[in-house]
Amino acid sequence: MDNTAIYRIPYGLYYLGTSNGAKQNICVVNTVAQVTDTPQRISVTVLKTNLTCEMITASGTFSAAILDIDSTLEDVAHFGQQSGRSTDKLTGMDIQNDTLGNPLYIQNCAAALSAAVVQKIDLGTHMLFIGEVKDASVLSDKTPLTYAEYRARKSGKTSSVQTEEQKATYQCSICHYVYDGDIPFEELPDDYVCPICKKPKSVFVKM
Amino acid sequence: MDNTAIYRIPYGLYYLGTSNGAKQNICVVNTVAQVTDTPQRISVTVLKTNLTCEMITASGTFSAAILDIDSTLEDVAHFGQQSGRSTDKLTGMDIQNDTLGNPLYIQNCAAALSAAVVQKIDLGTHMLFIGEVKDASVLSDKTPLTYAEYRARKSGKTSSVQTEEQKATYQCSICHYVYDGDIPFEELPDDYVCPICKKPKSVFVKM
Repeated sequence: MDNTAIYRIPYGLYYLGTSNGAKQNICVVNTVAQVTDTPQRISVTVLKTNLTCEMITASGTFSAAILDIDSTLEDVAHFGQQSGRSTDKLTGMDIQNDTLGNPLYIQNCAAALSAAVVQKIDLGTHMLFIGEVKDASVLSDKTPLTYAEYRARKSGKTSSVQTEEQKATYQCSICHYVYDGDIPFEELPDDYVCPICKKPKSVFVKM
Repeated sequence: MDNTAIYRIPYGLYYLGTSNGAKQNICVVNTVAQVTDTPQRISVTVLKTNLTCEMITASGTFSAAILDIDSTLEDVAHFGQQSGRSTDKLTGMDIQNDTLGNPLYIQNCAAALSAAVVQKIDLGTHMLFIGEVKDASVLSDKTPLTYAEYRARKSGKTSSVQTEEQKATYQCSICHYVYDGDIPFEELPDDYVCPICKKPKSVFVKM
């Protein structure tokens, strides 16, 4: 069994906002998903030792803002790589409040959801919360950020899993322009055209 | 409340394989996610009226193959847009079996997972199965397909949420090459260079 196979599952990234009245906190998770449509319910899985798990358990609500492609590594590091136990991550940041009293950080976010917990499933190391969506808004029409894209940016690579060594080179058979984009040629849209002679992707040949 | 906000959550696509001994079936879902790492557990949410829900409940196991970027619309339609109740979707397809007896269709898949159900949570319209991963393999190093990319391809668009009207035009300030790719310029990697004069993305100006 290859223990790395499970890491190929794609995810988004979310600012998970919680409040226990006295304290507010936001962390970054990749574990938000829709589970039902009628009513609209979302699930979120949180490590039981995290402050966020305690706070959702106490308040019974949470907010989840969907990061978009323009999110900065700095913002993700600020909310994702510090513990709310030792730091007030909200101080000095542009924070809003949702209708349930949870903090929301919506910079470079595609949408925001607020949910009330209706089920709590103990998974050992993690707690799975099922929340009924009580408020929701679309914030931009930008593409949501995927966890793979974030990891790739962080490591200075593109979102392709391929390495330079594995990356094949393609050349336009008409004008001999060699594709040198950072997105693997195989992943370009079908209607990609040669930037030089404007011929279709189909005229490119693997070198 | 905007009921469309929830649809901005990114997902992958999966061939979900089930077997009740006599019958095998594969359907397409976008609801597979990792929930714990020790032990490795994944969740999958299935509509309770679907044959797949009956079969997972009966067998207590399922397989999930992670579709990659090269998956064809035809394959997704074959397994995703027909019911296993009326059609044997596996006939004539290149099907393998996992170690738990579930069918696997691994054409253009990045990885395959096989799981044994350890928890079953009734969510009203859907059933949420928690499965412990019993077998797993990486099948390719290609980028997993996202549901957004699949929907975009199906509608003949690129994966960008932006429409032509909203799409901004960018020109290289050095050689005046006008970017004409189908991937929105804002979404190109930071190390994208002008295909003509090889200057960095930063020299491009919005027209």
